[in-house]
Amino acid sequence: MWVPDNEDATAPNMRDEGIQNIIDVVADHGADFPGEIHPRMVWHRESPGTRYQGFKHMMEVADPENGAIEHIDGFVIPEVGDIDDWKKADECFTIVENEYGLEEGSLSMSVIVESGEAELAMGDLREEMGKPSNNLERLFLLVDGEVDYTKDMRAMTPTGELPPWPELRHNTSRGASAAGLIAVDGPYDDIRDEAGYQERMTENRAKGMTGIWSLTPGQVVAANTAPLPPKTGSWLLEVGDEDVELTEEDGRQVYDGPDLSLSDNGDGTYTLAVGGDERTLDEDEVTEELLEMTSYVPSMNDIVDSMEEFEAAKAAGKGAIAMTQAATLVVDGVEVEVSKDRMWDEATYQAAQTPVALFQDVYEHRPDQHEELEEMYGADVVERATNVGN
Amino acid sequence: MWVPDNEDATAPNMRDEGIQNIIDVVADHGADFPGEIHPRMVWHRESPGTRYQGFKHMMEVADPENGAIEHIDGFVIPEVGDIDDWKKADECFTIVENEYGLEEGSLSMSVIVESGEAELAMGDLREEMGKPSNNLERLFLLVDGEVDYTKDMRAMTPTGELPPWPELRHNTSRGASAAGLIAVDGPYDDIRDEAGYQERMTENRAKGMTGIWSLTPGQVVAANTAPLPPKTGSWLLEVGDEDVELTEEDGRQVYDGPDLSLSDNGDGTYTLAVGGDERTLDEDEVTEELLEMTSYVPSMNDIVDSMEEFEAAKAAGKGAIAMTQAATLVVDGVEVEVSKDRMWDEATYQAAQTPVALFQDVYEHRPDQHEELEEMYGADVVERATNVGN
Amino acid sequence: MWVPDNEDATAPNMRDEGIQNIIDVVADHGADFPGEIHPRMVWHRESPGTRYQGFKHMMEVADPENGAIEHIDGFVIPEVGDIDDWKKADECFTIVENEYGLEEGSLSMSVIVESGEAELAMGDLREEMGKPSNNLERLFLLVDGEVDYTKDMRAMTPTGELPPWPELRHNTSRGASAAGLIAVDGPYDDIRDEAGYQERMTENRAKGMTGIWSLTPGQVVAANTAPLPPKTGSWLLEVGDEDVELTEEDGRQVYDGPDLSLSDNGDGTYTLAVGGDERTLDEDEVTEELLEMTSYVPSMNDIVDSMEEFEAAKAAGKGAIAMTQAATLVVDGVEVEVSKDRMWDEATYQAAQTPVALFQDVYEHRPDQHEELEEMYGADVVERATNVGN
Repeated sequence: MWVPDNEDATAPNMRDEGIQNIIDVVADHGADFPGEIHPRMVWHRESPGTRYQGFKHMMEVADPENGAIEHIDGFVIPEVGDIDDWKKADECFTIVENEYGLEEGSLSMSVIVESGEAELAMGDLREEMGKPSNNLERLFLLVDGEVDYTKDMRAMTPTGELPPWPELRHNTSRGASAAGLIAVDGPYDDIRDEAGYQERMTENRAKGMTGIWSLTPGQVVAANTAPLPPKTGSWLLEVGDEDVELTEEDGRQVYDGPDLSLSDNGDGTYTLAVGGDERTLDEDEVTEELLEMTSYVPSMNDIVDSMEEFEAAKAAGKGAIAMTQAATLVVDGVEVEVSKDRMWDEATYQAAQTPVALFQDVYEHRPDQHEELEEMYGADVVERATNVGN
Repeated sequence: MWVPDNEDATAPNMRDEGIQNIIDVVADHGADFPGEIHPRMVWHRESPGTRYQGFKHMMEVADPENGAIEHIDGFVIPEVGDIDDWKKADECFTIVENEYGLEEGSLSMSVIVESGEAELAMGDLREEMGKPSNNLERLFLLVDGEVDYTKDMRAMTPTGELPPWPELRHNTSRGASAAGLIAVDGPYDDIRDEAGYQERMTENRAKGMTGIWSLTPGQVVAANTAPLPPKTGSWLLEVGDEDVELTEEDGRQVYDGPDLSLSDNGDGTYTLAVGGDERTLDEDEVTEELLEMTSYVPSMNDIVDSMEEFEAAKAAGKGAIAMTQAATLVVDGVEVEVSKDRMWDEATYQAAQTPVALFQDVYEHRPDQHEELEEMYGADVVERATNVGN
Repeated sequence: MWVPDNEDATAPNMRDEGIQNIIDVVADHGADFPGEIHPRMVWHRESPGTRYQGFKHMMEVADPENGAIEHIDGFVIPEVGDIDDWKKADECFTIVENEYGLEEGSLSMSVIVESGEAELAMGDLREEMGKPSNNLERLFLLVDGEVDYTKDMRAMTPTGELPPWPELRHNTSRGASAAGLIAVDGPYDDIRDEAGYQERMTENRAKGMTGIWSLTPGQVVAANTAPLPPKTGSWLLEVGDEDVELTEEDGRQVYDGPDLSLSDNGDGTYTLAVGGDERTLDEDEVTEELLEMTSYVPSMNDIVDSMEEFEAAKAAGKGAIAMTQAATLVVDGVEVEVSKDRMWDEATYQAAQTPVALFQDVYEHRPDQHEELEEMYGADVVERATNVGN
């Protein structure tokens, strides 16, 4: 999704010109953009003047004579306040739709949550969206705007960097879940820090926040590919505070870093050194020890496999089955077999389905990406992944 | 409490048979079970069919002809949605009670919180429970179901392990606190990881979540004993990121690990090395340094002592007193006296009472455990602990 | 603000005497106290007797014949429950004001949030404060009372120390933000641990909680000076888990700790060792590496500079500009130039304004501190800081 911005990235005294820019660029290039287009308007819960300006801008963008509206899917409204303020914005959308003969509710509305009031409003969305006196069903994205939120909360950090706001992100994700919307994180401040951007996305996905704002071409690519499962699975070994990915060699998982060493003493015991800490262990103990340090990142193929296996078990009348992941670990040439069991029941199955459902969603709505997805995963995995769970 | 499960642990197409199993096992063995029995039914906020099935199952379990209901204290309802959905379940209970002449509200209702809607609903419980048009006073446990919650929030982790969901657990604990219920954590995924289970329970108790689901006999024992204060107090020394328990020898607390060393230089100074970091300190400094690294885990006896001491002070007209914990630490043979003061006021007293109140609750409701508790703590401590604070 | 306490610091059977003490000390010394005075009364959501006692105490303190009320700005009400309980307290204030001819709403009301109910009530404040049937606009501080909250949540930790309650602090800060109030943290348990107190305040400010309870003269000074930006900026280098402040020498930022070493190999490469980990890097890589470890704590002067620069850019029609911070780092005599860019837009500008707004607030309301502030920052910086952003 593309968000041409006429709010904070445009100087306040240039916003009427800004809206003209947006109309021009969308009218000229909108047809070629494969995703959705949702320009960001000006709006402020505390300023009727700003709200009226935002309304007039939407009216202008939506005017069919200007040639942009046919490419536009909705608008992003920043700085919303409590739920009544969201309703004011919704009413502006309805008037715009009515004025130009668009279907009521056809323009989607995304909001930037960047105030305590808006955070609280997300607790009421589900109930409010059902009321006949509004068209809030048009809601689409809930986007956290951490910079303005930091200001609104009067929060300060010594270096001026943004606080992590885990609770806000949780509440946004929960609000999206309860109201059938999509939770999206705001801009990642440090645009050159790619590793940090990846880490933030991993954190966000663990909170149920699937999207993130992208400011640069590099961030666009990262944000669109990161949520999909990898082509190949990988084994991780937790050494110190870090997860080190093991190298596969002839079907074995090899660790060759400096922080772990293992030797076979020949008498049935092993010497395992983690960091500076050296211990003599028997075979069971060394297996147990390495097992605890090991985790597995499943590939798309693995996830589809597990889902199919559980579906078959369910059809055969089983409520829960054990899924096993096994590997031969190699440290300093010494081989150790590890094997992990996990109980799968209906809930595990459904939770595992999330990345697959995301894949299916992309596949359905972006035929232009079919080829690329098949190149990435292979045609067979793509076919099975599009069918599983349906 | 025992929860025979007819939901996710039973295959969907076997649930009518499953309910018959539950009836049989409770009718045959329910009388011998010393705790409460609350079978888990099927239910889903988004499926009227599943709700109707759950209702019919409850009706069957409650039928006095089947011989199970006399041993049953309530039902656990999974997959509830917003508060109106909780009311639908409550109404099913009421109809069941009415049908078989049971007292209205006599069957308790526990819910599994495993959706954003249900998490939000916990904010309204206190208000809704007071309404005359429902019997929500029957509510008992609020249980977090993290696997389904993860699915409902569309959350993903690279390895498929569950996110920690600290905010959900906080909100469940708060909901329980505000509505007079009990907050319980869901299943702990990795059933062989005992240390992880203990750690999770410690974390949970710090959030006010006193109970946890148990899947194995080992987990049952761990979950039921962990929340009680220990028989003997212990001193901890924080070295690196870990708390090491000191060994008591002749009333002194001895550290003999490799990560801390101390020597008396004979000239009034000491050399203290923590990890690789070596410093020369005078006596006050070394005392201060070790004091900061030290903490004390009080025994049941210590807690009762402190409470009695504060009660006496209060009766004498004091609002706040200092409680002192002192110890002789020994590191590399060098002795250092440390002493910690903590201000106790009415609030400290009441907060300290929580584990004692839990003990009193167990003692009152489980006469079959009196003997074991006396063996654990000694008869004198048990007697004082049952009386203090009342 | 000074809070003479007649609640937990006073024994329950001495509270009528306690209120007399407060009246005496405020009548005698209130005129000399430069800040506001808000005595803490007794109150409890579950005890009508305690509430009535609190009401009678307020009536006594407010009696103009007792000579205290002219110095008093409001009262602090502990142990409030849900919003209806807050309204009961508000009504007591209104009756007291009416009885003695004080303007309705003139006495401010601060509450101690120390129950799940009260935490939930903060979600309704904004809406409830607008209702004509109460005077809740008198609300001033939302104070977290973690000791009683811990009790109310039935939370336990092995050592009895308080849980960190990050979610409560977030919700209090959000409640304050949404309702135009001030969020304040409760007492810091370990009164001798100054570093811990500073750390807690830094954490709190990152959550938008600007104030904190102070129990000792040292804590009073720390709490009142900590939120203001420093006089001089400083560069930090993150080594291991710690941020080390670099020493300025002749305009260069020097690191001379043991955990980082750098040597110029003379052939265009450098050897950088962090902890035990040694790597050979080219100039760009070593710059990148050090840049990532570096952060800058801006001074008051820096913040004002950046704000003025952005204001000028905005007036010139720019929506976003890059702000640069550059430094010459010196490690083991080797110099490396680092430079950081950050995009500033309207949101960044407004977020940066928070500490300046706090300064302006102090400056406006405490003329007695003008001299001290000018000594600290210099008259020029004080003048620019009082004018910027208005």
